[in-house]
Amino acid sequence: MLLSAPAAYFYSMKFFSLSLILLCCSLSTTHAQDSATFRRISDQILLKGECYEDLRVLSKNIGHRLSGSESAAKAVTWAAETLKKAGADTVWLQPVEVPHWVRGKESLKINWTGNQNFEAIPMLSLGNTVGTDGRDLEAEIITVNNFDEFHKLPREKVAGKIVFFNYHFPQELVNTFEGYGVAGPYRWLSPTYASSKGAVAVIIRSISTGEDDVPHTGSLRYADTVKPIPAVAIGNHSANRLAAQTAKGTVRARLNSNCKMLDPVMSYNVIGEIRGNTKPEEIVLVGAHLDSWDVGDGAHDDGAGCVQAIEVIRTIKTLNLNPSRTVRAVLFMNEENGLKGGLAYNDSALANNENHILALESDAGGFSPRGIGLEMSKDKQEQIRRYRHLFLPYGVYDFEQEHGGADISPLKRRGVPVSGLIPDPQRYFDLHHTPADVFEAVNHRELKVGAVVMTQFIYLIAQTGLN
Amino acid sequence: MLLSAPAAYFYSMKFFSLSLILLCCSLSTTHAQDSATFRRISDQILLKGECYEDLRVLSKNIGHRLSGSESAAKAVTWAAETLKKAGADTVWLQPVEVPHWVRGKESLKINWTGNQNFEAIPMLSLGNTVGTDGRDLEAEIITVNNFDEFHKLPREKVAGKIVFFNYHFPQELVNTFEGYGVAGPYRWLSPTYASSKGAVAVIIRSISTGEDDVPHTGSLRYADTVKPIPAVAIGNHSANRLAAQTAKGTVRARLNSNCKMLDPVMSYNVIGEIRGNTKPEEIVLVGAHLDSWDVGDGAHDDGAGCVQAIEVIRTIKTLNLNPSRTVRAVLFMNEENGLKGGLAYNDSALANNENHILALESDAGGFSPRGIGLEMSKDKQEQIRRYRHLFLPYGVYDFEQEHGGADISPLKRRGVPVSGLIPDPQRYFDLHHTPADVFEAVNHRELKVGAVVMTQFIYLIAQTGLN
Repeated sequence: MLLSAPAAYFYSMKFFSLSLILLCCSLSTTHAQDSATFRRISDQILLKGECYEDLRVLSKNIGHRLSGSESAAKAVTWAAETLKKAGADTVWLQPVEVPHWVRGKESLKINWTGNQNFEAIPMLSLGNTVGTDGRDLEAEIITVNNFDEFHKLPREKVAGKIVFFNYHFPQELVNTFEGYGVAGPYRWLSPTYASSKGAVAVIIRSISTGEDDVPHTGSLRYADTVKPIPAVAIGNHSANRLAAQTAKGTVRARLNSNCKMLDPVMSYNVIGEIRGNTKPEEIVLVGAHLDSWDVGDGAHDDGAGCVQAIEVIRTIKTLNLNPSRTVRAVLFMNEENGLKGGLAYNDSALANNENHILALESDAGGFSPRGIGLEMSKDKQEQIRRYRHLFLPYGVYDFEQEHGGADISPLKRRGVPVSGLIPDPQRYFDLHHTPADVFEAVNHRELKVGAVVMTQFIYLIAQTGLN
Repeated sequence: MLLSAPAAYFYSMKFFSLSLILLCCSLSTTHAQDSATFRRISDQILLKGECYEDLRVLSKNIGHRLSGSESAAKAVTWAAETLKKAGADTVWLQPVEVPHWVRGKESLKINWTGNQNFEAIPMLSLGNTVGTDGRDLEAEIITVNNFDEFHKLPREKVAGKIVFFNYHFPQELVNTFEGYGVAGPYRWLSPTYASSKGAVAVIIRSISTGEDDVPHTGSLRYADTVKPIPAVAIGNHSANRLAAQTAKGTVRARLNSNCKMLDPVMSYNVIGEIRGNTKPEEIVLVGAHLDSWDVGDGAHDDGAGCVQAIEVIRTIKTLNLNPSRTVRAVLFMNEENGLKGGLAYNDSALANNENHILALESDAGGFSPRGIGLEMSKDKQEQIRRYRHLFLPYGVYDFEQEHGGADISPLKRRGVPVSGLIPDPQRYFDLHHTPADVFEAVNHRELKVGAVVMTQFIYLIAQTGLN
């Protein structure tokens, strides 16, 4: 784009439509002050924010950090130190026993041609899956396009086979999280379904929007009633090829993997807070998860949320905002393959009779923010929506989705109002749970604008409360 | 992000807030039908759109395509063929004489230490600048942080020197296009200012949001009253270093460049249209520019807009939408360093007494769409805003900015209502006019959702008109 004339230099920013202004005019007494504070927060983070540099350190010096790993332990130490430096009054570690799943060497080789030539293709075992103990598991592949097709198959067509679940991510859904909702069960449930009819292993088309061959890992859970069988994901290009080839004739595969579940390990949620000025017993929580899958950097998922939560603390402290209520950042452990951190936090909150007036999680990637999800009573939703005009200049317009976060779902089940940052969803499921989720895929400004909006929202709730 | 339980699979999408529904209820008779057509357009492009593949061909098979270059000529041929294949009723080339500026070999070497050691740093000559005819131009560098500082300097402090304009892109502006508006004059005007006080060359800090050392080219224009002097851009890291070093003591530089303006070349705007069903004489224009700078792939700027405009034609044809008014895609030549295509198009439209009821340009990158700019009378703005609810499910909420496009600005000056697609602005000025503006920096879904919204908007106007 060229600026062809000085007249083109100034793009006017008239974000406030007449209808919204009319809707909100009853709030105008506090508007000017809130709006000025919102701007101070934005200037601070966009000009002097440190979240992007924090993410570089977490991604590049520590790297991916699956629960139970050495790097997860390093991440705990780093997070505690960083929260302290950011200015939290108190920082502590909350013990959490976490599962310790390890991948090890693995391969999936396909016999495309019917001769003895098996070709390795890009693959990742799904998280928590059993492996083949380092032995070749060889069998014929049968392809089904969805659960309906699978459920119609008699047991004898499935027994002894590797079932390929060739379900496509529904690309037509503009909100890719809806698509994830539809496709996600193919990761969670396929191994259980296949095992129940005697299959020896499962291959899934990755839960992926990518036009590429990148495999996506992610959790599965076996039903107690079935024998656990190995489950792996392949990228979209390989999936296309496999679907075409199995339609033509018999295709065999050799799977070899060493993944297994080891004994649980003691780990920690990392917590830092700024004590409220007038109502310290009321807690506003801002959270993210510190663990990641064991590929890539875990940069969008969820390093981004972690460094944004830390930035909330840093900004409130740096600007001396002195919140009325306590603002607490919680970096949860083990969101990806157990949710033990979220459960332990909730247990502790319950035991200590803590009063959480709201919890927000950022766990949908470090992309430009577009909305804030509100899972709470209609009254509380309406109370928050009265402030939506304040967020419009920051590109945040959508307060209609009911979206929180996995780590804070145990709080929600106890009646705590929960929220989720809603970033632009187009790129997330190209990267999610893959080797491509690296620091370089995060844009510094998108990450920071997200942190701006989180800080504004958390501070607003810390000042106004939620009745 | 993990989906921890089946209950989490479904993120509800209640985009229509009560207030907006109330505002729009008078339009509900046409809503259902419009909404269904919008959805058909979206499904078609998200599932079967070809714009991403088109962009791969334009970026990777043809590459960057500065006006007058051989690749620009190839792009013209490709665009005409692609528009024809996309289903345009008529495709034609509109002759445009364009400037032919060439870069050639170039280097900027800095003597950081005061000894005889000159170190080359990443740089790009600004577009249309004069060069040094392949000879070393060596001089001392003086740094100014802005025009105010420069204007206070007496001529004798400037004469014979290389002036380094160290103006920082204002990162605090959430809308980076506002920042570009503020910083842009440092690219346009610095060479003229510096020359007027006898400087021998200009270095500018790139007009860049990047936290990197990537130089950004882009146009300048010399005032007729000054002697043209060479002007180059350096990346932010080098600019930081240069500012620090010149604050400490004397720093000299050697500039060597071969860029020059050759004789003008005959080139073309590429135009394809679908003739209107009932009011063919009323034209709805969708445009972008086919030329690019001579670095990178010109993928966001503006390959993205070109393939989106072609997708508009393809989708209207494929879905048999039979627009009432004529829909015309125009791929303008020479937006970057002359705007000759936009001027020629306007001359032709005037000569042929054509009736353009609206022109939309996509030239702000292939990112997720967030709004549609409206540069037109208040009445027409309000007429379009009545349909805003239709765009909300596609993430487009902002109809408040007055934003069109450079190529359609000559039409605007004659009173034609103009519009501009407004994508998310956070990443654009990291990439704009750089070697990093490559195909790989464009996300397939973001590009397609942009094409969806353009098609919806163009088709809407083609059906409803604009009174």
